[in-house]
Amino acid sequence: MDGRFERIDGYLQDNLERYLQDVVRLCAQPSVSSTGQGVRACADLVHQLLLEHGVEAEIYQTRGNPIVVGKARGKSDRTLLFYNHYDVQPPEPLELWDTPPFEPTITDEALFARGAKDDKGEFISRLAALDAVRSAYGELPCNVIFLVEGEEENGSPNIAQFVLEHKDLLMADGSIWEEGGVERGNRPSLLLGVRGVLFVEMTVEALKMDAHSGHAHVLPNAAWRMVHAISLLKDRNERILIPGFYDRVRTFTPAELEAFDAWPDIEPALRNTFGIDRFLRGKKGNDLRKAVFEPTCNIAGFGSGYQGPGTKTVIPAKAMAKIDFRLVPDQDPEDIHARLRSYLDQNGLEDIKIQVLGKMWPFTTPMDDPFVQLTAALAQEVYGKETLIGPITGGSSPIYAVGGPLDIPVVNPGIGYWDNRAHAPNEHIRIQDFLNGSRHIARILARF
Amino acid sequence: MDGRFERIDGYLQDNLERYLQDVVRLCAQPSVSSTGQGVRACADLVHQLLLEHGVEAEIYQTRGNPIVVGKARGKSDRTLLFYNHYDVQPPEPLELWDTPPFEPTITDEALFARGAKDDKGEFISRLAALDAVRSAYGELPCNVIFLVEGEEENGSPNIAQFVLEHKDLLMADGSIWEEGGVERGNRPSLLLGVRGVLFVEMTVEALKMDAHSGHAHVLPNAAWRMVHAISLLKDRNERILIPGFYDRVRTFTPAELEAFDAWPDIEPALRNTFGIDRFLRGKKGNDLRKAVFEPTCNIAGFGSGYQGPGTKTVIPAKAMAKIDFRLVPDQDPEDIHARLRSYLDQNGLEDIKIQVLGKMWPFTTPMDDPFVQLTAALAQEVYGKETLIGPITGGSSPIYAVGGPLDIPVVNPGIGYWDNRAHAPNEHIRIQDFLNGSRHIARILARF
Repeated sequence: MDGRFERIDGYLQDNLERYLQDVVRLCAQPSVSSTGQGVRACADLVHQLLLEHGVEAEIYQTRGNPIVVGKARGKSDRTLLFYNHYDVQPPEPLELWDTPPFEPTITDEALFARGAKDDKGEFISRLAALDAVRSAYGELPCNVIFLVEGEEENGSPNIAQFVLEHKDLLMADGSIWEEGGVERGNRPSLLLGVRGVLFVEMTVEALKMDAHSGHAHVLPNAAWRMVHAISLLKDRNERILIPGFYDRVRTFTPAELEAFDAWPDIEPALRNTFGIDRFLRGKKGNDLRKAVFEPTCNIAGFGSGYQGPGTKTVIPAKAMAKIDFRLVPDQDPEDIHARLRSYLDQNGLEDIKIQVLGKMWPFTTPMDDPFVQLTAALAQEVYGKETLIGPITGGSSPIYAVGGPLDIPVVNPGIGYWDNRAHAPNEHIRIQDFLNGSRHIARILARF
Repeated sequence: MDGRFERIDGYLQDNLERYLQDVVRLCAQPSVSSTGQGVRACADLVHQLLLEHGVEAEIYQTRGNPIVVGKARGKSDRTLLFYNHYDVQPPEPLELWDTPPFEPTITDEALFARGAKDDKGEFISRLAALDAVRSAYGELPCNVIFLVEGEEENGSPNIAQFVLEHKDLLMADGSIWEEGGVERGNRPSLLLGVRGVLFVEMTVEALKMDAHSGHAHVLPNAAWRMVHAISLLKDRNERILIPGFYDRVRTFTPAELEAFDAWPDIEPALRNTFGIDRFLRGKKGNDLRKAVFEPTCNIAGFGSGYQGPGTKTVIPAKAMAKIDFRLVPDQDPEDIHARLRSYLDQNGLEDIKIQVLGKMWPFTTPMDDPFVQLTAALAQEVYGKETLIGPITGGSSPIYAVGGPLDIPVVNPGIGYWDNRAHAPNEHIRIQDFLNGSRHIARILARF
């Protein structure tokens, strides 16, 4: 072991409280992208924090929320790019928080706040790693770029364009994403990709106004039209019925398909968390993880007509459904959107309007990429356990927007664990995870 | 023409403003049975109004909202029973009202308020008729019973039991229902029956709490289960798919099936009111009326997951749908409920819970009943046009609960016209209809 790793670890341990206070400072600043609350003030604070930690930084305006870019020069000509975001999910429902979401609270073991994990703590852990490496090595062994956006929780509508327009600014040899950490059993994990997503809102107006349901033998019903439309999308075996939907799904390698065999069984936790005893298509054990190689069609919400207590005998004039499709490589959300439109039209449902509310492309980094191997090996050193590697995860993030145009591998070491409650009340990080995550990132900086 | 009919008409014309003020007074008192708002105060007001118009009255408690019964003695031993209800539909959506729903507004031609037509104006028109007949004849020629319930908009769950338990109190020779009036062209119409209804709320809970839609490949989705359940109920040709659903539909007589041929074409009005150019199954002209001989399956509302602006990538834990089936003679809502339960079970949807929120049986009075003939002839006298007779109408009301146990014919002259907007924003009555309806009822009282 490199003696300097001991100095890194010592530095991080000695300065832990200082970095936790940075997390507190950043989390105390609300930055809810879906409402706009505090977003610009938070971009300024990110800029300020980068400067305080010796990183040149600049705020770039976009059509949406500002993007903050930081740069620190290192000894080699290799460049590592950190992706983070400073926006957070809405804190509601507030009544389920044990401590106020924007008043960070530190206990012996954890730090509670909206954004503690997703993604402000993560960002600070990387500043800590940078400081630790500079302290141990005198200078950075490689160049570092921070790319910190403010619309990730809103579907990152501007990041792809920004990267395309600033390829020279952002050119790097590898990228470290957000959202990583340890799995159950505290084993380090790396996820090498994400599914894409197409999020649409479908609406239909069948009548100029609601009618009495005594007319139901002749008047069209918007809710029925929506049910007909939705029911065409997927059969009861979870097979998506849009013609050509699966055409571009790439064949996964045997190594990818088998990778989840090494992971702990997620079934007991899912059963417990969601109070269920049966999963879709009767899947069990590690097949629950492996199902992530398949795309999905999810109803995130629908509404029509009278939803209050008791009865109201109306024919609803309007109906709405929010649908998200999770896409696997090499599906394309724009292609899926076109196929959806055409499928509804072919079925006489031209009156169903489709509005695209979000789209992201799938992206994966090959399991055998040297950057993956390096990150996995260093994780094993920090955590003392073999690193779990997952070829893809169920969610979506704009990795494609960075990894694609820059053509670089992307991995996601981090400070998370299996119960951070990101997007939920009582979001928190475990302090030990924060420390370990920082140690891991510092080692990657040293060896990249 | 009986000279006393002129005195009746004169009385009603001279006292019109007074009776309209009674409508205003009654409509200003909210009485939303689905929420309970103002219901008991409204029962008291109905009681008070009966007393003020010289009708002995009593409020009867039920397991639901009170029922008010009024009695006025007449010269003969024949008894006419008026059925009305004092409850109203919820006023929402409020923003579509031009005047506040519970602040009745009178213009030169109309009176606007929730309940103006359905059914408070109707009730007052009968009090007006009673007063007019007493004024013209010195006394009532027949006995009169008022049966005014407070749960009609909630499916009248207690009226059947009440009638069964109070047959002696309510024994009559004929009944005048609510909901009648003139058709397009201001031709008087009589509807001789109603469809039954089964109103159910279906709910399903697939998860203990909402989940991130990145898990959609394995976690069950309540909205999807509900869509699967609903889509099993009816095909796109409007054929209801519950096994045995049509078994008890009786054969209608040729006279019944042809009765609507005499009616004005409803198509242009439906097109205009609802802004549509196509009806279910491509029906046109008088076939739109004749389709009422068929039962329906209507989605009155559904809801699940996130319905706010923008995106939220969740798997909804719960979903809800409100469904009403309109039933024709001799379908039985309890039989249909049992068949629905069994059908869902057979399709693996045992987790969909069904709560019956309302049920009513279909009921028809024969077209050739003498009471029908009398009422039709007197209508022709008042309106100067031949009376249209419809064997059945699209809506439902608890006629079966009165007409069945008392074994009497039931007809529905009234104060309505084709665009009263009952159950919708801007509900109103035309003042001329109120006057004519009162004149017609007064004549029936005189000749019954």
